[in-house]
Amino acid sequence: MRKLALLLLVLFPCLFKTTNVQAEVLQTPATEPAGSVNGRWVLSADFYGTPLDLVLRLQRDGEKLAGDLDGSKLEGTAQGNAIHFCVAQYRAGKVEGSGTIQGAAMTGTVIYTESSSPEHPTTLPFTAKLVQQRSGPPQRHEFVPTTFYRQFSAGYSPVLTVSAGDTIHTTTVDAGGKDEKGATRSMGGNPETGPFYVESALPGDTLVVHIVRLRLNRDWAISDDSIVDRGMDSDLAVKMKDSGKDVRWHLDIQRGVATPEKPSEHLARYSVPVKPMLGCVAVATRGAAPGTGDSGYYGGNMDFNEIIEGATVYLPVSVPGALLYVGDGHAVEGDGELTGNALETSMDVEFTVDVISGKSVPEPRVESATHIMAMGLNGSIDDAFREATSNMAQWLTDDYKLTPSEVAQVLGTSAEYKVSEVADRNAGVVLKIRKELLQPLK
Amino acid sequence: MRKLALLLLVLFPCLFKTTNVQAEVLQTPATEPAGSVNGRWVLSADFYGTPLDLVLRLQRDGEKLAGDLDGSKLEGTAQGNAIHFCVAQYRAGKVEGSGTIQGAAMTGTVIYTESSSPEHPTTLPFTAKLVQQRSGPPQRHEFVPTTFYRQFSAGYSPVLTVSAGDTIHTTTVDAGGKDEKGATRSMGGNPETGPFYVESALPGDTLVVHIVRLRLNRDWAISDDSIVDRGMDSDLAVKMKDSGKDVRWHLDIQRGVATPEKPSEHLARYSVPVKPMLGCVAVATRGAAPGTGDSGYYGGNMDFNEIIEGATVYLPVSVPGALLYVGDGHAVEGDGELTGNALETSMDVEFTVDVISGKSVPEPRVESATHIMAMGLNGSIDDAFREATSNMAQWLTDDYKLTPSEVAQVLGTSAEYKVSEVADRNAGVVLKIRKELLQPLK
Amino acid sequence: MRKLALLLLVLFPCLFKTTNVQAEVLQTPATEPAGSVNGRWVLSADFYGTPLDLVLRLQRDGEKLAGDLDGSKLEGTAQGNAIHFCVAQYRAGKVEGSGTIQGAAMTGTVIYTESSSPEHPTTLPFTAKLVQQRSGPPQRHEFVPTTFYRQFSAGYSPVLTVSAGDTIHTTTVDAGGKDEKGATRSMGGNPETGPFYVESALPGDTLVVHIVRLRLNRDWAISDDSIVDRGMDSDLAVKMKDSGKDVRWHLDIQRGVATPEKPSEHLARYSVPVKPMLGCVAVATRGAAPGTGDSGYYGGNMDFNEIIEGATVYLPVSVPGALLYVGDGHAVEGDGELTGNALETSMDVEFTVDVISGKSVPEPRVESATHIMAMGLNGSIDDAFREATSNMAQWLTDDYKLTPSEVAQVLGTSAEYKVSEVADRNAGVVLKIRKELLQPLK
Amino acid sequence: MRKLALLLLVLFPCLFKTTNVQAEVLQTPATEPAGSVNGRWVLSADFYGTPLDLVLRLQRDGEKLAGDLDGSKLEGTAQGNAIHFCVAQYRAGKVEGSGTIQGAAMTGTVIYTESSSPEHPTTLPFTAKLVQQRSGPPQRHEFVPTTFYRQFSAGYSPVLTVSAGDTIHTTTVDAGGKDEKGATRSMGGNPETGPFYVESALPGDTLVVHIVRLRLNRDWAISDDSIVDRGMDSDLAVKMKDSGKDVRWHLDIQRGVATPEKPSEHLARYSVPVKPMLGCVAVATRGAAPGTGDSGYYGGNMDFNEIIEGATVYLPVSVPGALLYVGDGHAVEGDGELTGNALETSMDVEFTVDVISGKSVPEPRVESATHIMAMGLNGSIDDAFREATSNMAQWLTDDYKLTPSEVAQVLGTSAEYKVSEVADRNAGVVLKIRKELLQPLK
Repeated sequence: MRKLALLLLVLFPCLFKTTNVQAEVLQTPATEPAGSVNGRWVLSADFYGTPLDLVLRLQRDGEKLAGDLDGSKLEGTAQGNAIHFCVAQYRAGKVEGSGTIQGAAMTGTVIYTESSSPEHPTTLPFTAKLVQQRSGPPQRHEFVPTTFYRQFSAGYSPVLTVSAGDTIHTTTVDAGGKDEKGATRSMGGNPETGPFYVESALPGDTLVVHIVRLRLNRDWAISDDSIVDRGMDSDLAVKMKDSGKDVRWHLDIQRGVATPEKPSEHLARYSVPVKPMLGCVAVATRGAAPGTGDSGYYGGNMDFNEIIEGATVYLPVSVPGALLYVGDGHAVEGDGELTGNALETSMDVEFTVDVISGKSVPEPRVESATHIMAMGLNGSIDDAFREATSNMAQWLTDDYKLTPSEVAQVLGTSAEYKVSEVADRNAGVVLKIRKELLQPLK
Repeated sequence: MRKLALLLLVLFPCLFKTTNVQAEVLQTPATEPAGSVNGRWVLSADFYGTPLDLVLRLQRDGEKLAGDLDGSKLEGTAQGNAIHFCVAQYRAGKVEGSGTIQGAAMTGTVIYTESSSPEHPTTLPFTAKLVQQRSGPPQRHEFVPTTFYRQFSAGYSPVLTVSAGDTIHTTTVDAGGKDEKGATRSMGGNPETGPFYVESALPGDTLVVHIVRLRLNRDWAISDDSIVDRGMDSDLAVKMKDSGKDVRWHLDIQRGVATPEKPSEHLARYSVPVKPMLGCVAVATRGAAPGTGDSGYYGGNMDFNEIIEGATVYLPVSVPGALLYVGDGHAVEGDGELTGNALETSMDVEFTVDVISGKSVPEPRVESATHIMAMGLNGSIDDAFREATSNMAQWLTDDYKLTPSEVAQVLGTSAEYKVSEVADRNAGVVLKIRKELLQPLK
Repeated sequence: MRKLALLLLVLFPCLFKTTNVQAEVLQTPATEPAGSVNGRWVLSADFYGTPLDLVLRLQRDGEKLAGDLDGSKLEGTAQGNAIHFCVAQYRAGKVEGSGTIQGAAMTGTVIYTESSSPEHPTTLPFTAKLVQQRSGPPQRHEFVPTTFYRQFSAGYSPVLTVSAGDTIHTTTVDAGGKDEKGATRSMGGNPETGPFYVESALPGDTLVVHIVRLRLNRDWAISDDSIVDRGMDSDLAVKMKDSGKDVRWHLDIQRGVATPEKPSEHLARYSVPVKPMLGCVAVATRGAAPGTGDSGYYGGNMDFNEIIEGATVYLPVSVPGALLYVGDGHAVEGDGELTGNALETSMDVEFTVDVISGKSVPEPRVESATHIMAMGLNGSIDDAFREATSNMAQWLTDDYKLTPSEVAQVLGTSAEYKVSEVADRNAGVVLKIRKELLQPLK
Repeated sequence: MRKLALLLLVLFPCLFKTTNVQAEVLQTPATEPAGSVNGRWVLSADFYGTPLDLVLRLQRDGEKLAGDLDGSKLEGTAQGNAIHFCVAQYRAGKVEGSGTIQGAAMTGTVIYTESSSPEHPTTLPFTAKLVQQRSGPPQRHEFVPTTFYRQFSAGYSPVLTVSAGDTIHTTTVDAGGKDEKGATRSMGGNPETGPFYVESALPGDTLVVHIVRLRLNRDWAISDDSIVDRGMDSDLAVKMKDSGKDVRWHLDIQRGVATPEKPSEHLARYSVPVKPMLGCVAVATRGAAPGTGDSGYYGGNMDFNEIIEGATVYLPVSVPGALLYVGDGHAVEGDGELTGNALETSMDVEFTVDVISGKSVPEPRVESATHIMAMGLNGSIDDAFREATSNMAQWLTDDYKLTPSEVAQVLGTSAEYKVSEVADRNAGVVLKIRKELLQPLK
């Protein structure tokens, strides 16, 4: 059977990346006083052993209720603490629900009836919470990590809860689990700092991560001298057959350059400027949790060397709170992380989180001072290329209102394609467009 | 950073698929009386929050100990209940260990020292169990599933523990979670029956699953009328743009044919012979658990339409007990599962499990009455093709002692390549060789 | 700039594979007496140095002319020997033409006016010939080749002209240019027998090649012991690094088996049944001529091991007479021709040619007693897979009138995908369907 | 059978890209007086209908001859005008030859004996010419093209013969065959200016093309609004289904910007800076001539948007004189030529040609003021990526003497990968390295 995604989509669209409700509509809900019906609720239910989170948006007008469930329009009534609603078209069927509100909490029941088997409705009790937004000014959090996780899982307890607009200052260990002092803190494989729970982030939203500061905090990195399979034809594979040993690099933080600690003959004078980046930025996924070596729509181990200080990353939220992970710092990485390990090192990092409500992105996007960048992450470079193009076409359609014909004309004259990742299960391609070209289109 | 696998490999090779110790050596250990040192022990330890299972094989001769740790040779001493051992070459370093035995249990400590940082040894307390093999005759187990899992996880408790040689008779629900009566038993996405714990299966072994019987147990299946992305060029994508609806098929169990329940005009007389198969056969993985829509070295959602009654599947064991999952029955599936959903239905299944100790396979292999078949599962058909070829080359080298030149000559004249899977994240290619061609080589 | 094809398509659609005129309409024109207007004419003209062949179909009714130019509808008038016609929609513009008929010949002028530059019409003088169809019964031709060509070129003079329905008996040399006696007859690289000119075959038609008989005519073949790049991952490439030597096989024509002449140790008892096939069946292309190691819509070096005695091959005609080439016989070939050279040998071959007028195929198709088979030939196995699927979808649409939804349902339950070729620039995938499944749909 | 290349390689290595003789050795031969034996000779022979060109390098010392044939060492004798030589290891056999010299010409015979069939030697009469190098200073040629070719063929007569070091100033028509005045000069499909014969360029050498000047010479370009197949997943294909129309752009040469002539609503203010480039730079190939829409080791329709004024292109010579073609100018092209047609226009171009004797490149390379760039051109982006990496690894090995381990370390920290071409049969990937990083390694 095909990917889980398809069946889930039929039943519970909220788990997925796109919604069919206008972003503008959903951005309006402001914080409501406790006890109010109005706002976005997260309904939690159990579907034969699988936990679900549905997003219910309600707007009361007298005894009438409007809104949507995971983006599908609902109608309903409210009387005192009791509400009742009906979603006529909920993908492959319909939903009826009723609940009782107490402050910012609700309990109730939804009944899902597939069109194809109206005789077998499924009844699910739920509990729900009204999504709160922070009232005060943005805060800055100092966070010192003690545990490090190796899956982008929704199952780990958040290490910190923050609000949209807040800033977090923390550190990451290197890909092998060693910290700024060289002490082992975790098994290797890109152990992550996090997860951070972002208060108002819901499935269907976009999490915005702006990297304010990203600095080296030790003077060495570990790498190797092999080339990954995706980079080698048969000839090169035979030539590289004896490579594969670790190579330790010295990081001169003052001068901002990296050099091999014990260079072999021809590299005695080789040095490269450092360009610190985060290999991993991710939100938690629904269902099976990806290992921290994997990447996908949730971001993850993208190993894109333009996720640097000053960059902004956009990721689609899959679970309440988004559950942000960061890790896998590289002092410098050639495109694609051809050696499998870039210059792996620990990192000092500060970033701001924000949420775009009710609007999702199909795959990760990145923005720098000069470019917008759409990523494609898939099982071959060819398929990643297609996805990057599709991701950017969607971006130009949504934000610049371009028609398909116009999308082609703009891409045909402005596209910059870069291969960002070849070292892991998914390859990565990035389609970049210079912002100054798009500026007149806004 | 590159896939988790690489780093893990450096530290703890036992988690991985291949070992460098001869299979013959390891197949010998028979069941020992409790209290004996001799045999295979599973050591469980915690590495900075990550659970580890190491396989320790011991053979006592007076006060001397021989054997290996995850396939790396050890030397040691035994005095009464106390043992001490040393592994001089344990991948990137060395290991020293000591333990105290009580019956079939042991507690102790291993110290791992990386060659590159001898000043920072890591000390890990462990507990261990002596691996037992069943003494009596093979048994047949009736198992009625009540819960169904949607990840090939090592984290779920086994639903049944069996011995090598035993037979299990059970049922599976369809990919959408519906059972033989049409009742919903799980959320969709290939919910699995299992996991079954196979007593003597250890990391580094091969699990053998022989399908004794595989039968339809209801008279309908669900499928659809779309074509997955890997099957469509732009032209076909445009033609198929309005497809994607469910199609329900009638299964005539008596006559052994499937027909659309409400065929459209040109399919009024269309029928296909059923050929019941299991889409999923898997062992649990270490680390992040794949969702049940995914496939890989552990098997999983392979959707290969020759995994039918009479077939034997070989999978590499990653965790103690192997933890076998089965599910996703198809009444019939064209090669590749082009529609994303084959004829999805519940199934009555009986299979025998066995273990090949100390010998692993790089990726799944299948055997029928007429063919040996090596699978490749990877992110593109091209890469799956390479893997299938490499898997078969290894098979011919190991079991038929062929040289590289001979491998090429045999494949060049006997290879049959089939595309087995295009519907999921990994594509699948199967390289088949007719057994009668290989018979004279043995 | 993109492939030549696109621009050509705009100007001169007749050169390409598909036409938008119903096959039925075009199949009717029967042979006309010389001097008649009626029938299909091939117009030859020169477009700034590039030779063109346009297909003009005319039907006279009094002074009115109907018909089409390369499938685009025309209107016109006829007075005595003089005709005048107008094609209002000829792709990116319009065409006006006039001619004077003398027997089965015509001279005249066409004027092409692009819609985008009406001020720059292009005037092309032409000569034309009325296409004749043979009146007598089918003939059998004995052909003894003396020269062998190494390009599927429209530029070589036909070695023999035959009519639709005729049979040709001839021989082919092996891929290295050696004949049945071992004598060198050509440089290597799949030298071909042909080209054969088939009288009534025109651009837009389908050439049908039915292999009546295909037999070995010597007792040895040459092959090698390497594996091509598409079949090797890095591991296998390193293992195979010292392979690449020639291997000579003995062909026991009596017993029908092949064995290595000087087998190495483990292959002492290895033998495979022979299954003689033609690696190359091709029609000439327009424009740049492919080398005889290449494949594509025109067929060519497909290396598909089911092009055997009894098979029928369908190819799209690109030039008047089709210009059929055959060569590159293999005594036996494992799927994909993994070793780069199969068991290369000379061959005795007899085949019948036929023409399906006015109906084209997008890529090669093959038919056996049991299956219809659609090929995809492209730069990766993934892309070849897409093309094979698209080719078969078109076949089911055209010949079985299936809707897109029905195409998916049939493919989802009946598809058999085989990797046919990995040794050359284009990979090949074949999608097969058992004919007995389709029988009830007709 | 596998690509022609393999067999040819066995017989006649001179036709191919690499030689095993040190470049230094071959660079020395200076021009010799007519009548001398010393220097490089091009031997022309006919091998069963296929023309051959062999490169014979001779150095006379008394009566002894040294040198090589296509890079394979020879020994021989010279007496008066008569020479005799023997090549003990000429790939799959040996060669004996003898000739008589008259001035700069020679006639004679070579006998090739395959090791596997010593009883069947092949005798080939030849004529030969001593390769002359220009004695005077470099010249600048004004060339006004009158015919335009649509194949990178060795079969067309050179339009101009120049010497290494010379400069040519000429013009190119656009991809559709229209010149700077808008007049049609050729059928479309990248008609080329050339071929130019470069006096001392021989098979096994590298042709160096330095673009001195590349300027627009008209104020419009033609493009379109579709996206090529390699850029579209199914979703995007459906969205783009109605696109495909021509789009004409205005080129403001003064301001250096391009704008759509009749922009649709959202592109009213869209403009892009022009960056004139040549889509095609090619040398002729041996054997089947590629169409001018194709690319490969010979360069061709690479559509790489950094082949601009100031860039230097390196191509491997396959035939005497190299036979250089240029064409397919683009006013501007986004990476990959995603729309199939970039901004196609005519061009004013001036370039210098040079030859690196006895040293070949495996695939095209480009150099700019800041970067060295290795191209990979193959049937998928994945395979093009592998080739680009292999091409650059070779470059670093040859010119910087790096070991495989060092190659990996440099690429892992400096690689910049760009997707250069997705519009044609071969995809293109370029691996760039900043020259300032490599500077200290020299």
